[in-house]
Amino acid sequence: MTATATRATHASTQAADHADQAGLVPLKPAPFNAESSVAALEPDVTPTPSFYVRSNFAVPSLDAAAFRLGIGGAVRQALELTLDELRALGSQTITTVMECAGNNRLQLAPLPSGEPWHVGAISAGTWTGTPLRAVLDRAGVQDGVVEILFEGADHGKPKDGPGDIPFARSLPLDKALAEGTLLAYEMNGEPLPRDHGAPLRLVVPSWYGMASVKWLNRIHAITEPFTGYYQRNRYIYELSDGSQAQPVTTMRVKSIIISPDEGGTVPPGPLTVRGKAWSGHGEIVRVEVAVDGGDDWREARLLPQTSATSWRAWELDWTADAAGRRALRSRATDSAGNVQPDDPRWNKYGYGNNAVRPITFNVSA
Amino acid sequence: MTATATRATHASTQAADHADQAGLVPLKPAPFNAESSVAALEPDVTPTPSFYVRSNFAVPSLDAAAFRLGIGGAVRQALELTLDELRALGSQTITTVMECAGNNRLQLAPLPSGEPWHVGAISAGTWTGTPLRAVLDRAGVQDGVVEILFEGADHGKPKDGPGDIPFARSLPLDKALAEGTLLAYEMNGEPLPRDHGAPLRLVVPSWYGMASVKWLNRIHAITEPFTGYYQRNRYIYELSDGSQAQPVTTMRVKSIIISPDEGGTVPPGPLTVRGKAWSGHGEIVRVEVAVDGGDDWREARLLPQTSATSWRAWELDWTADAAGRRALRSRATDSAGNVQPDDPRWNKYGYGNNAVRPITFNVSA
Repeated sequence: MTATATRATHASTQAADHADQAGLVPLKPAPFNAESSVAALEPDVTPTPSFYVRSNFAVPSLDAAAFRLGIGGAVRQALELTLDELRALGSQTITTVMECAGNNRLQLAPLPSGEPWHVGAISAGTWTGTPLRAVLDRAGVQDGVVEILFEGADHGKPKDGPGDIPFARSLPLDKALAEGTLLAYEMNGEPLPRDHGAPLRLVVPSWYGMASVKWLNRIHAITEPFTGYYQRNRYIYELSDGSQAQPVTTMRVKSIIISPDEGGTVPPGPLTVRGKAWSGHGEIVRVEVAVDGGDDWREARLLPQTSATSWRAWELDWTADAAGRRALRSRATDSAGNVQPDDPRWNKYGYGNNAVRPITFNVSA
Repeated sequence: MTATATRATHASTQAADHADQAGLVPLKPAPFNAESSVAALEPDVTPTPSFYVRSNFAVPSLDAAAFRLGIGGAVRQALELTLDELRALGSQTITTVMECAGNNRLQLAPLPSGEPWHVGAISAGTWTGTPLRAVLDRAGVQDGVVEILFEGADHGKPKDGPGDIPFARSLPLDKALAEGTLLAYEMNGEPLPRDHGAPLRLVVPSWYGMASVKWLNRIHAITEPFTGYYQRNRYIYELSDGSQAQPVTTMRVKSIIISPDEGGTVPPGPLTVRGKAWSGHGEIVRVEVAVDGGDDWREARLLPQTSATSWRAWELDWTADAAGRRALRSRATDSAGNVQPDDPRWNKYGYGNNAVRPITFNVSA
């Protein structure tokens, strides 16, 4: 099946378009990559202009009116669906937290190659779209299908890659059919913006962001596991011990301190430490906070979970006592019993780092 | 022997005295603790107002005219020496680099308790004083002496300490007698400032700063190793594996990137990366720099060594090419073959961290 979407791309997006967008910290101008500022992570749903942007190649400019999603491979009925035809298959709205697999790469030693993400390649969005299952049911997945492959309209040659390739990733069939896996055409109540995959992107709750293929162009039902570059050469946990590299999939349990500001100054006295915590492996059941170094962990208060697939806000009441530079750490535990580790788990490409990370701030005298 | 120095102390030094001092980043107002800003580390000798300050207790206010250094213990002739009498024993001027043993504690995981030093608890000073050997020769060290004990006029009760104790540390006899070990009354050509130990401090080249006892009050020649709090309970490498804790002594090989500024922005084009490197175990023989993550280490140019006991400046010419956030790391090797490790070597109190540490900065488009 040939994709019919217009694959016009331009060499670079203009960083200037984004430079004055509050809450976005640029990482690379071309293609535009940026992380959310920590302050922008305060709301339950990250405003679109502050939502982190990860693009591997020049950002496609696709004509929504001419757009057709191709569905092919081992299906009973190959399809080419317009956005209106997709909408007609039913819609669902979900709020999910999405984290770039390379978030907090800077904490790993030795520093892996790859974008030097600090802490903000994480955001939560509300997505509206067609459940992927509805589309696959319509096409009719054949017996023997093991994975569903998703191909974006973005393409290029990775530095060590095999040539000009599209961004492409697969999901196991059960994850593709799972409740919540969505073909999204709206983000936070508006049509999907171009940097976030317009006109259509996959949204895969609980998985790292690389699974949520942007500028989604083609879907293939396949009977052998996909072995493309972004499935077997990148987005893998490759260790230096010669063990078989494991694929990057589900988001590891993690937390972030949002307030007080890292490096900022607060007056002495009562203070509420606030943050978020998330896991792809289950709900957050505990967040602990340590003030200063050492082992004095205190239990934070968990705020109500607003979406099963999003993050959970937490708070700790603390009295800023001794003046000077102070340190804070947070440590989340999920319902599967996973706890954030103290030490970052190094891997060659720097994915999935969920280690506890201290921030410092100042208490004024 | 009773110390005759005036031991008047005040409860806290005024942070306001220091707040506008260029190049000093306050860590704690009382007692005043501060690290040097990275930019202040550019000169070969750190200007006094930018020299890092580490004080354990309230800063003593000693009257230089009334000051007497007591020398006692296993010596043939106990002494009480005025500053003029010390000067009459001969003077020496040396430039040394001095690093707080807790510098870069923030990089250790889990975060140890102790002051949360970032990267700037390091400075180089030019010290003028009396060679310690001249004083010990005058007193006559008896046979059987194994260490020389140094006691400051500063005192207090450490949180887990045995009560009100002075800051006190010992040196092995050979280090005490070594060329360069100095009783300093001048820093950078001026009388020693109060925060740096006025009127007299010990300066121990090649060792971490805790050895260079400030407000030096008494010296004791001792025939058994000293077992005081700051010798056996702190300033030790205590691991969690139950092994015997080792004392913190010699500075480990290390380097710092001074330019470009961490977090700053540089224009595209030619750029000289600059920094310093030092080791207590020998001279610096190599500094390598890696641009971005991965393994592409490039050899930096070593500038002439200006003092055998100080740090060594290095440079790397580089062309800032791709715009965006970039990472830089430096890695020093000393003449004893020591190389900075990738991973911080954790210990309970967070001393001696000399791991490679990435900085990031931005190349403008």
